[in-house]
Amino acid sequence: MSQALRLLARSRRLVRVPPSASASAPGLGGAASLPFRPPNAARMASQNSFRIEYDTFGELKVPNDKYYGAQTVRSTMNFKIGGVTERMPIPVIKAFGILKRAAAEVNQDYGLDPKIANAIMKAADEVAEGKLNDHFPLVVWQTGSGTQTNMNVNEVISNRAIEMLGGELGSKKPVHPNDHVNKSQSSNDTFPTAMHIAAAMEVHEVLLPGLQKLHDALQAKSKDFAQIIKIGRTHTQDAVPLTLGQEFSGYVQQLKYAMMRVKAAMPRIYELAAGGTAVGTGLNTRIGFAEKVAAKVATLTGLPFVTAPNKFEALAAHDALVELSGAMNTTACSLMKIANDIRFLGSGPRSGLGELILPENEPGSSIMPGKVNPTQCEAMTMVAAQVMGNHVAVTVGGSNGHFELNVFKPMMIKNVLHSARLLGDAAVSFTENCVVGIQANRDRIDKLMNESLMLVTALNPHIGYDKAAKIAKTAHKNGSTLKATAIELGFLTAEQFDEWVKPKDMLGPK
Amino acid sequence: MSQALRLLARSRRLVRVPPSASASAPGLGGAASLPFRPPNAARMASQNSFRIEYDTFGELKVPNDKYYGAQTVRSTMNFKIGGVTERMPIPVIKAFGILKRAAAEVNQDYGLDPKIANAIMKAADEVAEGKLNDHFPLVVWQTGSGTQTNMNVNEVISNRAIEMLGGELGSKKPVHPNDHVNKSQSSNDTFPTAMHIAAAMEVHEVLLPGLQKLHDALQAKSKDFAQIIKIGRTHTQDAVPLTLGQEFSGYVQQLKYAMMRVKAAMPRIYELAAGGTAVGTGLNTRIGFAEKVAAKVATLTGLPFVTAPNKFEALAAHDALVELSGAMNTTACSLMKIANDIRFLGSGPRSGLGELILPENEPGSSIMPGKVNPTQCEAMTMVAAQVMGNHVAVTVGGSNGHFELNVFKPMMIKNVLHSARLLGDAAVSFTENCVVGIQANRDRIDKLMNESLMLVTALNPHIGYDKAAKIAKTAHKNGSTLKATAIELGFLTAEQFDEWVKPKDMLGPK
Amino acid sequence: MSQALRLLARSRRLVRVPPSASASAPGLGGAASLPFRPPNAARMASQNSFRIEYDTFGELKVPNDKYYGAQTVRSTMNFKIGGVTERMPIPVIKAFGILKRAAAEVNQDYGLDPKIANAIMKAADEVAEGKLNDHFPLVVWQTGSGTQTNMNVNEVISNRAIEMLGGELGSKKPVHPNDHVNKSQSSNDTFPTAMHIAAAMEVHEVLLPGLQKLHDALQAKSKDFAQIIKIGRTHTQDAVPLTLGQEFSGYVQQLKYAMMRVKAAMPRIYELAAGGTAVGTGLNTRIGFAEKVAAKVATLTGLPFVTAPNKFEALAAHDALVELSGAMNTTACSLMKIANDIRFLGSGPRSGLGELILPENEPGSSIMPGKVNPTQCEAMTMVAAQVMGNHVAVTVGGSNGHFELNVFKPMMIKNVLHSARLLGDAAVSFTENCVVGIQANRDRIDKLMNESLMLVTALNPHIGYDKAAKIAKTAHKNGSTLKATAIELGFLTAEQFDEWVKPKDMLGPK
Amino acid sequence: MSQALRLLARSRRLVRVPPSASASAPGLGGAASLPFRPPNAARMASQNSFRIEYDTFGELKVPNDKYYGAQTVRSTMNFKIGGVTERMPIPVIKAFGILKRAAAEVNQDYGLDPKIANAIMKAADEVAEGKLNDHFPLVVWQTGSGTQTNMNVNEVISNRAIEMLGGELGSKKPVHPNDHVNKSQSSNDTFPTAMHIAAAMEVHEVLLPGLQKLHDALQAKSKDFAQIIKIGRTHTQDAVPLTLGQEFSGYVQQLKYAMMRVKAAMPRIYELAAGGTAVGTGLNTRIGFAEKVAAKVATLTGLPFVTAPNKFEALAAHDALVELSGAMNTTACSLMKIANDIRFLGSGPRSGLGELILPENEPGSSIMPGKVNPTQCEAMTMVAAQVMGNHVAVTVGGSNGHFELNVFKPMMIKNVLHSARLLGDAAVSFTENCVVGIQANRDRIDKLMNESLMLVTALNPHIGYDKAAKIAKTAHKNGSTLKATAIELGFLTAEQFDEWVKPKDMLGPK
Repeated sequence: MSQALRLLARSRRLVRVPPSASASAPGLGGAASLPFRPPNAARMASQNSFRIEYDTFGELKVPNDKYYGAQTVRSTMNFKIGGVTERMPIPVIKAFGILKRAAAEVNQDYGLDPKIANAIMKAADEVAEGKLNDHFPLVVWQTGSGTQTNMNVNEVISNRAIEMLGGELGSKKPVHPNDHVNKSQSSNDTFPTAMHIAAAMEVHEVLLPGLQKLHDALQAKSKDFAQIIKIGRTHTQDAVPLTLGQEFSGYVQQLKYAMMRVKAAMPRIYELAAGGTAVGTGLNTRIGFAEKVAAKVATLTGLPFVTAPNKFEALAAHDALVELSGAMNTTACSLMKIANDIRFLGSGPRSGLGELILPENEPGSSIMPGKVNPTQCEAMTMVAAQVMGNHVAVTVGGSNGHFELNVFKPMMIKNVLHSARLLGDAAVSFTENCVVGIQANRDRIDKLMNESLMLVTALNPHIGYDKAAKIAKTAHKNGSTLKATAIELGFLTAEQFDEWVKPKDMLGPK
Repeated sequence: MSQALRLLARSRRLVRVPPSASASAPGLGGAASLPFRPPNAARMASQNSFRIEYDTFGELKVPNDKYYGAQTVRSTMNFKIGGVTERMPIPVIKAFGILKRAAAEVNQDYGLDPKIANAIMKAADEVAEGKLNDHFPLVVWQTGSGTQTNMNVNEVISNRAIEMLGGELGSKKPVHPNDHVNKSQSSNDTFPTAMHIAAAMEVHEVLLPGLQKLHDALQAKSKDFAQIIKIGRTHTQDAVPLTLGQEFSGYVQQLKYAMMRVKAAMPRIYELAAGGTAVGTGLNTRIGFAEKVAAKVATLTGLPFVTAPNKFEALAAHDALVELSGAMNTTACSLMKIANDIRFLGSGPRSGLGELILPENEPGSSIMPGKVNPTQCEAMTMVAAQVMGNHVAVTVGGSNGHFELNVFKPMMIKNVLHSARLLGDAAVSFTENCVVGIQANRDRIDKLMNESLMLVTALNPHIGYDKAAKIAKTAHKNGSTLKATAIELGFLTAEQFDEWVKPKDMLGPK
Repeated sequence: MSQALRLLARSRRLVRVPPSASASAPGLGGAASLPFRPPNAARMASQNSFRIEYDTFGELKVPNDKYYGAQTVRSTMNFKIGGVTERMPIPVIKAFGILKRAAAEVNQDYGLDPKIANAIMKAADEVAEGKLNDHFPLVVWQTGSGTQTNMNVNEVISNRAIEMLGGELGSKKPVHPNDHVNKSQSSNDTFPTAMHIAAAMEVHEVLLPGLQKLHDALQAKSKDFAQIIKIGRTHTQDAVPLTLGQEFSGYVQQLKYAMMRVKAAMPRIYELAAGGTAVGTGLNTRIGFAEKVAAKVATLTGLPFVTAPNKFEALAAHDALVELSGAMNTTACSLMKIANDIRFLGSGPRSGLGELILPENEPGSSIMPGKVNPTQCEAMTMVAAQVMGNHVAVTVGGSNGHFELNVFKPMMIKNVLHSARLLGDAAVSFTENCVVGIQANRDRIDKLMNESLMLVTALNPHIGYDKAAKIAKTAHKNGSTLKATAIELGFLTAEQFDEWVKPKDMLGPK
Repeated sequence: MSQALRLLARSRRLVRVPPSASASAPGLGGAASLPFRPPNAARMASQNSFRIEYDTFGELKVPNDKYYGAQTVRSTMNFKIGGVTERMPIPVIKAFGILKRAAAEVNQDYGLDPKIANAIMKAADEVAEGKLNDHFPLVVWQTGSGTQTNMNVNEVISNRAIEMLGGELGSKKPVHPNDHVNKSQSSNDTFPTAMHIAAAMEVHEVLLPGLQKLHDALQAKSKDFAQIIKIGRTHTQDAVPLTLGQEFSGYVQQLKYAMMRVKAAMPRIYELAAGGTAVGTGLNTRIGFAEKVAAKVATLTGLPFVTAPNKFEALAAHDALVELSGAMNTTACSLMKIANDIRFLGSGPRSGLGELILPENEPGSSIMPGKVNPTQCEAMTMVAAQVMGNHVAVTVGGSNGHFELNVFKPMMIKNVLHSARLLGDAAVSFTENCVVGIQANRDRIDKLMNESLMLVTALNPHIGYDKAAKIAKTAHKNGSTLKATAIELGFLTAEQFDEWVKPKDMLGPK
């Protein structure tokens, strides 16, 4: 018992320790005292070395090796929720880099000192490229507008730009995080802009390529299997035949539509809130700023972003993300269905349906050769369930905006990006490690096909329904084949049976 | 086309016809022995008067005053789940009427005896028009393919056609439910076809008109309120001003997009499974049947139905319904947001925000005059919650298809139709009983506007941020106005304040 | 107590009584002009015959054959949402009858004129018994507090009591709907009270008996199948053996826990809000009223209701219903799993797993004898999906209460009652029409068992892992049996194989 | 445009780069080539230094500085889904450490070489204490049984034990991952055991302490605010008064019940599957093993774990996790309600309700002093939405088990742990940074109270309802106070008004 307490005491200390430890913000809940990581010269140095920065609430210690500033540190102190896995997703950070770069370009057009604008652009590019990922320690469970992440970005770009220009970190000179980096912007319009950029890029870089790859692999299989006639199953029960290629063609269609659905949601994702400062009015921006920023972002990303026609909607509601999440929810249904079919059709090796032979990717069991666990199907169906859950979180958040601002922003984008990434990655993994290697078990398929009682249907025109029914019922009762039974009952000859009962004539309209 | 319009006109009238309660199927769990309904000569007669019909499982008593047959009665015996409110939605029954009519026409083209075809068409028209609603007692909690409802339809049309032709009910002559009414069809393709027809008609007759009406009313209000400047609220807290018209313009945009989202889902709803019999192959149909039926349905309804390009997908998955449900889920988020805003902006009369005056529709309280309960907002937000829940049910059903058939069909269409009807009806009710009567409480809006501390922002260019901040902080501390405080602090004159602090200059970019 | 039993007995009979469709409220959207219902003397009379009643908004026509009054009629005019299937569930109406009766008894204790109290009690009993169901036309999509249904109840009881006492309908004399029927009550405490009474009764009358029945049937099967050794399946793939009884014992455990979960949620359902008028304070009630009403309701129902310890929570939140819905959501997961297993184990007849023979309840297909569609499994899994969706609706509603009142009450109770009824009914249907008739297909089970490769595990201790593995791999490759392969490879004799490979020794720890 | 392509090209390369980079498994998708992290001597060494390990599929390179082996590496190659944030949650890894230690102790009792058992125990303790977290690189999107994580644990413990005993890593001697570490175990029973241990520990270490802390803080506020009378709000509209303490008492009750609900779910979480190997039978275990392991785990954790009474249910279903998730879903509803109330009651400073003064934790806006963004409320409501979404994911997974194994295990436990951690952490953050600092704005509360029209209710007994109503209506129309209006109308004197209208007499029954 004393051991129990000791163990619990230890784990109680440990429970907040994040899996990774690059965080060295003083407020990140003990990250600095990670107990089981061998001390490392560089890190210790950074931990012992702080600069003092200020915000309007007072002074704070900021690690010397970080570009972020006081407001970021303060957020780490106020929101100790969930650990490092809960940090603002990197795609949002990168999207902010793109946005800040675009805004700096446009601000220069409107008169911002080119030296400052240029430094901001370079620093923003580094953020966009992921070079400064370690400088974004904030979790999504912060203010619902994402203000603190906007400030985190402003602080990092400001300090990095200051460094480039030879200034002192934290001095806010010559590049001020608010006055320069955030110029003509507010959290309320930049965060939704970054959400849309991040979502669009993840869709184009991860989700759609993954779905396309899976679509193509299924289509190839559908063609390969075009001539394999197999028994159909409705209500999970034996039914009339179709080809394995036809069966797979249904999956191909589902994937094709999945991509269409995702694309149909994109026009509203391409609309950017940038320029709709504060409450959506655009206070403190210049006429044309919104349109120019959207155009710059479009150029930088190669995606057809435009300025949102109504900024009030763009800040106060995130219906566009609910819509995109809905498209992914439908995709999850499709993938759940396909993965379920494949694992059931590949079940066995002896006591299942056994029509498909799935690739063996890892040891199934140390004692049973031939056991293939359809692990890729399992990963896929787990992903599908997660996407359905994420969709509900997005829906609840999306329905709870008030007045001029929806304050479920970080949670919503986290879930949308999670779904996009999981579906895209899982589609690739499922394709490469399962679909491309699927083989038809011809012997098994033929056997099930030939034993099937429902082929009797083909005899109706020749011997009439009643005799056909008698054949089927007798065969079922005796466990014999249709052919043997039909001959035994004296209704027809073996030759007639072979001539009349042809599954390949049952595959379409006449 | 004129026929289409006529049919639509009729069904528009009919769409609200409730499933009647005069069920007298022996299997409907006591419906025949409703204890507190005064005996009625006609009903008693029917209850004492049965004919005997048969299916392959044996004979069953069918009430003489019903057109349905043995398979329908058997289903009422096997599925005593949930009572009359759980019956197959009437729009599905009507859609079946349209489909059976179309199929009869096409079957006649392919050789069906015109006398029989004609009688089927007439009977099917009655089903489509809702004239035979009392003859469809089955609940949705039956077989997951909806087979029993397809047979219910076949039996009713068969018997009604027999009656028209002077035959004997239940004789299956001269119009056989399977051989004639169901010719070239199977439950597996007809039920999904009826699902899509019903969903499309409910969307066009109830959902979209309701959303349009609400959109238009909000747009009118947005214009009416274009000049009313009010305080904005972000994070539910005071922020910079916008016009009440701008605030409402966000709602208008949400409704506009809601309609776009629903419409974007329709192309896949317009695809009909008809012709993909059994497992999707089209066994026992004729080449061209599928296309012709879709064309007939398009003509009858005036909606652009086409035959589904892949029937295997159309039977085995119902992603299209999940997608449509997703569009309605997004719409529910929009409506939840709007209704929440309106009730909070209309809260009071004394101790709330009080910026809007909502119509009084019913007594709020017998003791407190002036209390307006925002009951239409409450009905709307309840509907929104229901639609979100329905969407999850549809999603779970949509993800659980197996092999050649999804067997969550009745549950899925019930929920989709439920959501469409509720959203459409609630939009109309909310518009007529709330939105059109909303008035701006100008005095209250002005008062909140003028007391607001954030107008101090306008002084920054004139007296500098520090002095402006001092004004705001002092005013906040003392509970005084900005103007009084500014004058008291000696930073400016009353005239200067009035010249510099103009909310109407804070409503957009410059 | 005997009264409780009597009342329960009556309501047990009544619980399935459907909401009738004979609505003739002028506002019910065309219900009065039902086009295809043959005119009926009594109804026509009622439609042409109105009395005038008043509420504070003016006069309204009330059908002469209805007991409800002006506020009910007004609600039908303001909330034309969804039609008759959307009416307030009958269990809520009946629960209101019980509550109003209890309140009248207690009010008499506190001084209400016994003649009036007595008439209220009699009329309330009729409501509780379902005798007046036709007089409750309101839909759930009304005010979120259920105020209009409370008034509907007050009006019906008042007018029925007036009638009993020989007064004039609508005169409010001598029994006033507010002053007498609603005495010491407000909508805000009575509606939640009726919600809890209705939920508890549905749980006890429908849900738990259904689950118990299914539990018992599965337990009987588990015992019947105790000696049948079959192949196990993990990852849907072949695995080591277990008995069919063991497999079913898992289902039995799930049902046992389902009942425990539901029961664990009940203590908070047994807490009644009655007495917490207006905002929960109990303004205008007497000390002791709350406790006495709860005690009366407990006596009337035979269920252990108590007064809620904190009325503010009881009005402003409905966590107890979210909790109960959560227990039903878990139950839905259990039932989905069980029904899925049974349909897959019963799949075939030739090309599926075929280990179970399911009862044939209706014609599966007109051409294929032996095809059993597992329709009861399909109804059950559709119900499970619906319950999961309902749970999300309840959750969204439960999370959106504000200040002193949650205004998603009618929607929440509708979904909770829907889930309880569907699960209970489906459990009974599934039991009676499927589970009790399940037979084990011994031949098929034995065949799959004996062909299975994983029995090779039993040879490890005798010939070593390597030789055992060689046997298995060779058998898999050649499609031969383990025994034949083992002998062919010369590793052991037929006698040794039979002695060493005994599935019945693999069923538990040693 | 070329810039766009360049940027896209760069980000395309980067998109799979995980936020943290401690992973050096060759299969982890480019983690080894993180482009923007300065090379580090130790890491480079490890990346250039591999040992060869084997599994039955062949040889694989394993980094020399990792304890895991071939099966772990293979999983990183086959499941490149989602990046490092998707790794198996650390609480699962720690729970596995506890389980493996317990199993080793029991195995020693049953004859395992004490030297080996001892080394396993020591290594397992290190896993339980989180010392080896860097050695568990697998994501949850793997096989649905968690087999690969079980093998990851077996490999790490085996190699660490080998190291302790002076052996060679990867040699499997003298401590074999399967034969010794996994002795008497299978993935199918160990993974669910670790799930339950992890869930129970997270509930006891994070969730319940967090809820208790919040409960206590709310209770303290409820007492502090016991004498502050304020206006109540129903339907978001003005209603009769209550005390602020009463209002908070509702929240206290919600928290109290939240803890009861979570605790009510625990008995089924305390049931461990250990001992139910393979399909639940316990094949290859010893009689008593299951009970002894559960007892050891109970001792090690101080929590009342027992062996599951039915192992088939414990492997094939995870209803217990759905149930626990349901309790957290209800808790999320409670917290959403409370956080919403607090932000609305604290809205302002001038144009909101303004009854509460919330702590200021960070700069709200650089231009508007006094603006408090209720950021803790926002974090809390986002957490609530996430928990509701997680619950649906758990539900979908829980409903989709098949036969002897549910294969949504890693996804389910990830979501359950996520919800527990987020709720627990957010409760602490919300308490410390918001609740404890809440102050009542007495002036504002009194003002709203005194202006309220509904106090007129108190006059009814003295001057009658009609005169009282006239006062209220006139006051509402004129925007005047009740008192002034009453006097002006000549119905009473100022003294009478003050004597009769006493809000403190309206706070409870009489």
